[in-house]
Amino acid sequence: MDYPEPIAKLINSYTKLPGIGPKTATRLAFYTLGMQEDDVVDFSKSLLSAKKDLTFCRICGNITENSVNPCAICQDKSRDQSTVFVVENSRDVMAMENTRDYYGLYHVLNGVISPSAGTGPEDINLPSLIRRLSDHQEINEVIVGTNANAEGEATAMYLARLLKPAGIKVTRLAHGLAVGSDIDYADQLTLIKAVQGRTEL
Amino acid sequence: MDYPEPIAKLINSYTKLPGIGPKTATRLAFYTLGMQEDDVVDFSKSLLSAKKDLTFCRICGNITENSVNPCAICQDKSRDQSTVFVVENSRDVMAMENTRDYYGLYHVLNGVISPSAGTGPEDINLPSLIRRLSDHQEINEVIVGTNANAEGEATAMYLARLLKPAGIKVTRLAHGLAVGSDIDYADQLTLIKAVQGRTEL
Repeated sequence: MDYPEPIAKLINSYTKLPGIGPKTATRLAFYTLGMQEDDVVDFSKSLLSAKKDLTFCRICGNITENSVNPCAICQDKSRDQSTVFVVENSRDVMAMENTRDYYGLYHVLNGVISPSAGTGPEDINLPSLIRRLSDHQEINEVIVGTNANAEGEATAMYLARLLKPAGIKVTRLAHGLAVGSDIDYADQLTLIKAVQGRTEL
Repeated sequence: MDYPEPIAKLINSYTKLPGIGPKTATRLAFYTLGMQEDDVVDFSKSLLSAKKDLTFCRICGNITENSVNPCAICQDKSRDQSTVFVVENSRDVMAMENTRDYYGLYHVLNGVISPSAGTGPEDINLPSLIRRLSDHQEINEVIVGTNANAEGEATAMYLARLLKPAGIKVTRLAHGLAVGSDIDYADQLTLIKAVQGRTEL
């Protein structure tokens, strides 16, 4: 026996989300049935709206509304126009913005170089970074904020080799102990990096 | 800084689902942006459809399409009309149907009696069960398939006390070891119940 079609379809839709299997999808679908009608309508609309009303900023690749392109950050002339922070995705921009400690610009790659997955420099938002740097000679530092894993490191290395000869300063986020963490819980690689990157007091 | 409104709204909608916090909601929302447009449209439609096109069967309380009421099980006269399996929700009906080993009818309470949560017999689909039993004298056994926790047991006890004087046989699903399980991993209560409910070989 199968569930009635409307709920079977909803379960199927939930199953397409990452990390949600058939059991969780069923639980979510039944929960949806018990939700306020307004909330379900909002949910339904926001799915379509997120898909239709958003696009990537034509300068930096960050996510932005169709009506705000270039994005708010790129349009903000009060920001430091000489520094570009390169990140993998829009969530990284948000994480950085929430620190309220960086006032430069961003460039969102929307991916990383990953030879194993067959993703090369041309497959991510990297050519536009090269164009951007040659069009805007005022940019003199590129901070590479890709994740601290194999793909992130590979992307950082690629950028450094490409941009350094052009006289642009390429920096990488520091590796080390997380603030508030215990040394004896840190993994070996992080400890090694923390020693290598030690600073004078 | 906040996310653009369309994605902020979608994140907010995802957060309303059970077990999904802000981090997961953000991940799901960004994943949604990268989904096939058709899948997102289907998802959006299925949310509305599940809310609009489904209702509870007016006989048994199981979930059913608006156009199929009473539900398919209640309409199926080939099923054993003398036995009613009482469960907490529609997922339990599905679990039981998937065993393909029960051919009677169901009654879905859509809840359990829970004094601590203030849920009494009148707040769940129980009065309709009483009416159903008095209208259909052919029903001679009620199998109580509520969950094996405090609320489920309380509901089972309530039903037994109410229905037994009316001459209806009230049975409860057996407690014991799960098939294929190890005795040394079973919890004490389950072991005690398994001994109490031992059967002769």
